Amino acid sequence: MPKNSSEISMSVVKRMPRYYRFLGNLKKDGVERISSKELSLRMGFTASQIRQDLNCFGGFGQQGYGYNVEQLYEEIGTILGVNNGYKTVIIGMGNLGKAIAAHMKFSKSGFDIIGLFDKDKGIIGEKVNDMPILSVDELESFCQQYSPVVAVLCVPESAARENVKMLVENGVTNFWNFSHFDIAAEFPGTISENVHLNDSLRTLNYQIMHRPANDGQKE
Amino acid sequence: MPKNSSEISMSVVKRMPRYYRFLGNLKKDGVERISSKELSLRMGFTASQIRQDLNCFGGFGQQGYGYNVEQLYEEIGTILGVNNGYKTVIIGMGNLGKAIAAHMKFSKSGFDIIGLFDKDKGIIGEKVNDMPILSVDELESFCQQYSPVVAVLCVPESAARENVKMLVENGVTNFWNFSHFDIAAEFPGTISENVHLNDSLRTLNYQIMHRPANDGQKE
Repeated sequence: MPKNSSEISMSVVKRMPRYYRFLGNLKKDGVERISSKELSLRMGFTASQIRQDLNCFGGFGQQGYGYNVEQLYEEIGTILGVNNGYKTVIIGMGNLGKAIAAHMKFSKSGFDIIGLFDKDKGIIGEKVNDMPILSVDELESFCQQYSPVVAVLCVPESAARENVKMLVENGVTNFWNFSHFDIAAEFPGTISENVHLNDSLRTLNYQIMHRPANDGQKE
Repeated sequence: MPKNSSEISMSVVKRMPRYYRFLGNLKKDGVERISSKELSLRMGFTASQIRQDLNCFGGFGQQGYGYNVEQLYEEIGTILGVNNGYKTVIIGMGNLGKAIAAHMKFSKSGFDIIGLFDKDKGIIGEKVNDMPILSVDELESFCQQYSPVVAVLCVPESAARENVKMLVENGVTNFWNFSHFDIAAEFPGTISENVHLNDSLRTLNYQIMHRPANDGQKE
C-alpha cells in the first residue's frame, strides 16, 4: 500500500531521480523487463532496498516477474512530476546561470523557464537559448504579470537575501539554490533544494584518500 | 574506536562535508562549544545520528560536555583531506567549466588547479583566475610533465570517453564528473564523483508537489 507523502523520508525521495535516470537508460537500450536483483546490480543498491523504496509509492512489480521498465519509468516520472511545467525564472546569468540555462533539461524535469534575469548591464539583452536576459529591475513586475512559482538562484550569497525577499513577497516560494544563502532559515514556508558543489568535491577527496590498496592504479 | 575506512559507508562519508560546512559557519559566528543536540537542531539530523557518524572516525566529544567547535572542524577537515593539494586539471572551459574554475574553493577542499583545457580555439588563451586556457591537444604532454592526479570533466558526454581514456593512460584516475558519461563502468579502478544536477532538480519538483498543506504559502 502506498504511504502518505508525509511518511516518505527525504532519503527515499532523493533516490527516486536516480531510479528514473537508470530506467530511462534501460528504456533507451530497449530493455523491457528487469528484476529487482538485476536493477540492484546496475544501481549499486540492494534488491531489498529497491523493493522497499518502490513500495513506499505502492510497489510496481509482481513477485518473481520483475518490473516492466517502461511502466516503472512512467510511474516514477509521475511521482517526480516531470510534466508539472512549473513556471520558473533564473536569477543571475553569469557563467553558472548560463551553463544551467543552456544545458539543463528543465522541461523534462517539470519546469518551464519563462525568464532570465541579471543586474549586469553588460549582458542584459544577450540571448541564451533564444531567450533574452532581462534586467533584475524588471523582475518584480514580471512576477506580478507572469506568476512564476520557482526561482533558480545563481547569484552570490551577498545578493541572494534581497532577491529572495522580493521573490517571496511576489509569490515565488520555491528555490533551486546555488548560492550559499540559507533560504529556509530566514524564510520559513519556502522550499529550497540547495546545491552544495563543495560538498561533492570534498566527498571526492575522501574517496581518493581512501582508495582501496592494490587496485593496480597509480596513486 | 575509529572504524577502518573500508567499513565506513558512503552515506556517512557524504554527510561529513555537511558537518564541515556547518562547523565552519559556527566557528565564523564565534561559537566555541556545541552539544550534539544543538548541532542536530541546526543540521536536521538526529543527535544519535551525529554521535554515530562521528564515532565512525573515533568520536570527538565528551559525554555531557559537547563538542569543541574549532577542534571538531579541524578534525573533520583532516578526515576530508582539505590540505591534500591534489594536482587537478579542468577539461572543458565552456560556461560550466568557467563557473567551476572561477567560483569553487578548490584549494580549501584539497585540490590545486594546475591547468585548464578546451578544444575551442576561440577561447584558448583566454584567462580564468589568471590562468590561461590551454588547447586540449597539449593535455597529454602536460600530464606527462606535471602529473596531475584529478580531472574535473565539464565536457559533453560525447567527448568524455576519449578524454577519460587518454587521462587514465597518463595516470589521471580520479574524476569530478559533470558529464553524463559513466566513467566507472568503462574504466574500472578509477574513482569518480558524479554530479547529477537533474537529480537535484527533480527532487525539488517532488518537494513542491508535496508541500505540506496549510503552510500559509501561495501554491
